[in-house]
Amino acid sequence: MNKRKVCIIVASRANYGRIKSVLHAVNEHPGLELQLVVEASALLYRYGSIIENIQRDGFTVDATAYTIVEGENPTTMAKSTGLAIIELTSVFERLKPDVVLTVADRFETLATAVAASYMNIPLAHTQGGELTGSIDESVRHAITKLSHVHFPSNDRAAAILSAMGEEPWRIFVTGCPAIDLAAQAITCDPGDLFVKYGGTGQPLSWDEPFLVVLQHPVTTEYGNSGKQIEQTLEAVSNIAMQTAWFWPNVDAGSDDISKRLRMFRERNTLFPLHFYRNFSPEDYACLLNKAACLVGNSSSGIREGAYLGTPVVNIGSRQRSRQRGGNVIDAGYDAQAIEAGIRSQLANGRYPSDHLYGDGKAAPRIADALATVELNITKQFIHGQ
Amino acid sequence: MNKRKVCIIVASRANYGRIKSVLHAVNEHPGLELQLVVEASALLYRYGSIIENIQRDGFTVDATAYTIVEGENPTTMAKSTGLAIIELTSVFERLKPDVVLTVADRFETLATAVAASYMNIPLAHTQGGELTGSIDESVRHAITKLSHVHFPSNDRAAAILSAMGEEPWRIFVTGCPAIDLAAQAITCDPGDLFVKYGGTGQPLSWDEPFLVVLQHPVTTEYGNSGKQIEQTLEAVSNIAMQTAWFWPNVDAGSDDISKRLRMFRERNTLFPLHFYRNFSPEDYACLLNKAACLVGNSSSGIREGAYLGTPVVNIGSRQRSRQRGGNVIDAGYDAQAIEAGIRSQLANGRYPSDHLYGDGKAAPRIADALATVELNITKQFIHGQ
Amino acid sequence: MNKRKVCIIVASRANYGRIKSVLHAVNEHPGLELQLVVEASALLYRYGSIIENIQRDGFTVDATAYTIVEGENPTTMAKSTGLAIIELTSVFERLKPDVVLTVADRFETLATAVAASYMNIPLAHTQGGELTGSIDESVRHAITKLSHVHFPSNDRAAAILSAMGEEPWRIFVTGCPAIDLAAQAITCDPGDLFVKYGGTGQPLSWDEPFLVVLQHPVTTEYGNSGKQIEQTLEAVSNIAMQTAWFWPNVDAGSDDISKRLRMFRERNTLFPLHFYRNFSPEDYACLLNKAACLVGNSSSGIREGAYLGTPVVNIGSRQRSRQRGGNVIDAGYDAQAIEAGIRSQLANGRYPSDHLYGDGKAAPRIADALATVELNITKQFIHGQ
Amino acid sequence: MNKRKVCIIVASRANYGRIKSVLHAVNEHPGLELQLVVEASALLYRYGSIIENIQRDGFTVDATAYTIVEGENPTTMAKSTGLAIIELTSVFERLKPDVVLTVADRFETLATAVAASYMNIPLAHTQGGELTGSIDESVRHAITKLSHVHFPSNDRAAAILSAMGEEPWRIFVTGCPAIDLAAQAITCDPGDLFVKYGGTGQPLSWDEPFLVVLQHPVTTEYGNSGKQIEQTLEAVSNIAMQTAWFWPNVDAGSDDISKRLRMFRERNTLFPLHFYRNFSPEDYACLLNKAACLVGNSSSGIREGAYLGTPVVNIGSRQRSRQRGGNVIDAGYDAQAIEAGIRSQLANGRYPSDHLYGDGKAAPRIADALATVELNITKQFIHGQ
Repeated sequence: MNKRKVCIIVASRANYGRIKSVLHAVNEHPGLELQLVVEASALLYRYGSIIENIQRDGFTVDATAYTIVEGENPTTMAKSTGLAIIELTSVFERLKPDVVLTVADRFETLATAVAASYMNIPLAHTQGGELTGSIDESVRHAITKLSHVHFPSNDRAAAILSAMGEEPWRIFVTGCPAIDLAAQAITCDPGDLFVKYGGTGQPLSWDEPFLVVLQHPVTTEYGNSGKQIEQTLEAVSNIAMQTAWFWPNVDAGSDDISKRLRMFRERNTLFPLHFYRNFSPEDYACLLNKAACLVGNSSSGIREGAYLGTPVVNIGSRQRSRQRGGNVIDAGYDAQAIEAGIRSQLANGRYPSDHLYGDGKAAPRIADALATVELNITKQFIHGQ
Repeated sequence: MNKRKVCIIVASRANYGRIKSVLHAVNEHPGLELQLVVEASALLYRYGSIIENIQRDGFTVDATAYTIVEGENPTTMAKSTGLAIIELTSVFERLKPDVVLTVADRFETLATAVAASYMNIPLAHTQGGELTGSIDESVRHAITKLSHVHFPSNDRAAAILSAMGEEPWRIFVTGCPAIDLAAQAITCDPGDLFVKYGGTGQPLSWDEPFLVVLQHPVTTEYGNSGKQIEQTLEAVSNIAMQTAWFWPNVDAGSDDISKRLRMFRERNTLFPLHFYRNFSPEDYACLLNKAACLVGNSSSGIREGAYLGTPVVNIGSRQRSRQRGGNVIDAGYDAQAIEAGIRSQLANGRYPSDHLYGDGKAAPRIADALATVELNITKQFIHGQ
Repeated sequence: MNKRKVCIIVASRANYGRIKSVLHAVNEHPGLELQLVVEASALLYRYGSIIENIQRDGFTVDATAYTIVEGENPTTMAKSTGLAIIELTSVFERLKPDVVLTVADRFETLATAVAASYMNIPLAHTQGGELTGSIDESVRHAITKLSHVHFPSNDRAAAILSAMGEEPWRIFVTGCPAIDLAAQAITCDPGDLFVKYGGTGQPLSWDEPFLVVLQHPVTTEYGNSGKQIEQTLEAVSNIAMQTAWFWPNVDAGSDDISKRLRMFRERNTLFPLHFYRNFSPEDYACLLNKAACLVGNSSSGIREGAYLGTPVVNIGSRQRSRQRGGNVIDAGYDAQAIEAGIRSQLANGRYPSDHLYGDGKAAPRIADALATVELNITKQFIHGQ
Repeated sequence: MNKRKVCIIVASRANYGRIKSVLHAVNEHPGLELQLVVEASALLYRYGSIIENIQRDGFTVDATAYTIVEGENPTTMAKSTGLAIIELTSVFERLKPDVVLTVADRFETLATAVAASYMNIPLAHTQGGELTGSIDESVRHAITKLSHVHFPSNDRAAAILSAMGEEPWRIFVTGCPAIDLAAQAITCDPGDLFVKYGGTGQPLSWDEPFLVVLQHPVTTEYGNSGKQIEQTLEAVSNIAMQTAWFWPNVDAGSDDISKRLRMFRERNTLFPLHFYRNFSPEDYACLLNKAACLVGNSSSGIREGAYLGTPVVNIGSRQRSRQRGGNVIDAGYDAQAIEAGIRSQLANGRYPSDHLYGDGKAAPRIADALATVELNITKQFIHGQ
């Protein structure tokens, strides 16, 4: 029997952590053959050269595509998506996958969905049916309507997919593959993580509590990301605890954030702050597992954080409407509220594990479904289910 | 008070007829300023140089964009969409519209939706919430999830939009603007329509009954369009009645259809058949109003045909699931079934008018809504409404 | 020893005939491995689906790229070139050729030259150093300045390359590979050529003399190609001899020509005229070898025509400044002059063979040079040689 | 009389300094109207947001285009050029210039040349006929062969243009506009230049001598730029003098250079070194006028440096073959040779002014020529002049 060729697209740092366990599961499944495409910011030095992590992890990259039109604004986000469609089309024409798997909801993942669905290649999608803010919200649901197979994280997400007309047989509640890595991180040993990834700033120590900060621009609030990050900087500055800070994603507005971060560093050279470009997904999960509090607007706090019991202060609108466990305190773009939230979380300490986004076994379920699901591109809208 | 700048994109022959009444209504509305963009196959000689019709109709074109990558296959459909995103982004950056209006569900209209929504420009959409087959089905719903204002044709379409999570205040049931032109065609005088548009083949006469045939490739059945059109050709050949036949759209598979049509013509030079590239939307509606039967898979039979009472034989899967009135008989890709359908419709004659897709007054409703609706790009998924 | 990977790009009907003998020679050379890329109009049905000829001839195609932005005007010529650069870059990144070979001077060949030279891949070029009119003149010399190895047709072309600063060791006077096919055609048997290629119009016979017409738009005279072809049509109409007419290239203005040709056909259905899309290069050479006169502005009349002794009436500016043998009479865009030229050539009959563009042995010389030349991308302008 | 519309493209920091005096001269010329397009790295924060300088200088920007595909390698250089062609074509179609002026020889300027010449728009070019190394050498001459009017810096460059077949009436020896700014800088007052442009590192003082370093990657030596910059860093480190260092251009390899510069900074926080992104062209000329020595491979040392008498140590192959005055000492990629060169120049002090690249009056000559030259796109190769 021919193996089904499963083509998986990794477009960014975030993508990789959310799909890595599936890459392994597909590679090892007797009925599947992995075709791995690495593109967009996953190729770029400024965003951590994720492709090097991927290759170090032992995966073979079947195609790459440079698709980011530089500018980090809404105009170049759109143009990058257009260019990605042009490039991925050529990749799919060459690799001739039986099914394409796209991850989550970043702007460039819509390019994968358009290229595959227009070329009549069955499209599978993880993280469909979740609700958030930002352009991600629109992108995620648009991808759902272009997709033929869905791997939602939980029953509520599956219910949203059904409401949107998706046929029940196309929906597999598998949990989110990002949780697979979090599950392993529960027992991790951080070792020399703070040194291993270089970065710039003051040295950090595992023996003292530390914050992790990860705040991306909200593209639908383009023009405000500079002001927004100022509030976070002020709060973190007041807490005056060891802080591991990650540079933001390539989204529109990231330049404004980076500029403020660099200015803060120049003016506070002695603050116990260290900047990182990129951790491997496992090491990032391990970091979350040890962090006193995660601050920012990354979905990892709400998703992996729920499983790990990491205290989280979630800032602003990016994760609006996203289902959350008890580990999350919300704050607006307001230094005082952020600071109060962090202090409250530090007082509380870690939370019990919550399987809201998965139980750590998503990857084998996804691989099995990819091996057996009917690959039928004729969609039927089921109304009123 | 500043007028709202409404940017409308016309990408094809079909687009123009479905939005022309809105172009007029926006032009004449005191609170609105029209920005007209003509792109894609609407610029191309092979698809009727629609831009010339538009300019003859008195509209000023504010921007054009060549976006069709030649090849007429799924690969080039995707690439054309990517190129259109790149081009339209530049157009929007220059024109700075307050709201963009995109029409229906052809593959290239998704480019408009991506460019506008990624650039944080409010996006309005006509014909959302309808159900059909082909890639159009996926494209239409994906555009809905990227859109901020919806102008569905009827209540069932509005209910589908609600089920998909769209906020009620964003939805305006206006009817379809294509019906606005159909409403005027009820009393039209065909005059010299058969001569006016040139074309090739035998001369046709209004004094005898005639068929109209319009059959596009179904992109999700790419590779079969040649065989499919053979069945229609055989049925039409057996009916042996005057026939006005339109060349198909630029979609993947159109080359195969064109090839068969040319072969049929070469072999049956005396058959009372005439090929046309393009009619103005009004003249096309007038033609439908007089036709003994419309054959093929154009939505115009189901939509405008309902209003006009035109007998229709609808072939294959392209209009699957689309709501239809009593004027439509369905047939598979099967010469015998198609022929039987046509004979049955010829025996029946015209049907009473049905306002299923609108009452002919969509344009002023859409213009009013565009002038007054809140232009808020922060979408909220409403579940279970 | 590793074989050198020679990547050859076929972008059009004309390209193929001008490089086919080299494809064979590279395939058979012990020190070389052929990588064949077929792109642009060579993939398109409207331009003869050259890729099918190539595959029927037994070549393996390693990559394809759809690059033609439809519109056939100067704007889309430029855009197509931009898209081709984007696409070919991905192709070269994947195939990693040791040297790229580009053919002649059509607008899209500059894309090959930019992609290869910017990527530091040594670039070889045929037909450099020739002089003509049209944008081809600029394109050819621009490619020369981006190229690292030159295969000019004759000593004058080599002298022009030297004057332009090219280092002598990079220049190999090999003759033009198009002449290799012409040399074989001297003894060809036309057989059923007139039937084999389908086409439309009246049947033609080998037993009577016939004209061949091939007139492309001159892109630098865009807007005039319709008027220009009218003159040719009038002259050919007056001669009233059997005529095999080829549809023009994809260049800007080709639509205007095609429109007039179709109109002429509709109005003169009984004229002994047959339209063809495409002959294999060998069959085309065989046709030239039998033609009473070639009319138009194709370089084939001047190049292959010189070797074959075919009488030629060359029209207008496209071949201005091109070296020609005694077989060519020039005429302006003027029906009377064209007609007079044809009558003079018919009276004269065939000419003796002239090796101006090669002796029929270019391919093995090119293959040998590709196998042994130093592949050094550091160019040095030699002034005053 | 209608003014001629002159469209000038500024694509980078370097472009702007080399054309700024012409922007003024065209703006003020009674027979000309300026159309200013800013694109490529001139829009990007990482490369100094040159567009802000341009607007602060009072120029109106008529169009912008994001064209840089991120990656800084040969592949993305080519892709960026392809994208620029697509974008500039749309710009030219809208602005309909009478003549386009392109600057010098950076990779992206070839996009301007292709777009304009393919669209039959007359193309003018500065700095043609000069000889250097790198891909610039090929790009510059390829642009010459696509251009219709030439503004070389001096008689030798004009002679090279003639040798390449350019018609004499198309060639105007005007001097290089970059020298116009240098001429004004002779009497400049640096004021607070070292503070005005921000940057990072130690404060610098005008009262002590200082080096200026500007070393770009050599694209045809891609992969070596990291090693090459190490040699320069070692030499500068040994000299231990105040140093103003500019980040490199966007060319392939710039990431490797930036990485090493950042590492050096981290390890030598007390070295009297300051990094700058961008000076206005006048301020940069003023800096050169005061510098004890310019080190690196920027053409500014050889061009403006000749006029200003600035001592220069020119490193590596990028300026190979470029005509130079007595102010330049060449060194290989070798720390010892570079250090020796700098010490020799410091011992020598400033040189007398040399008008090798112009006398400071290029702009009015270029404006006059643009207003009066015949705009004829039919080129004729003149051999043996």
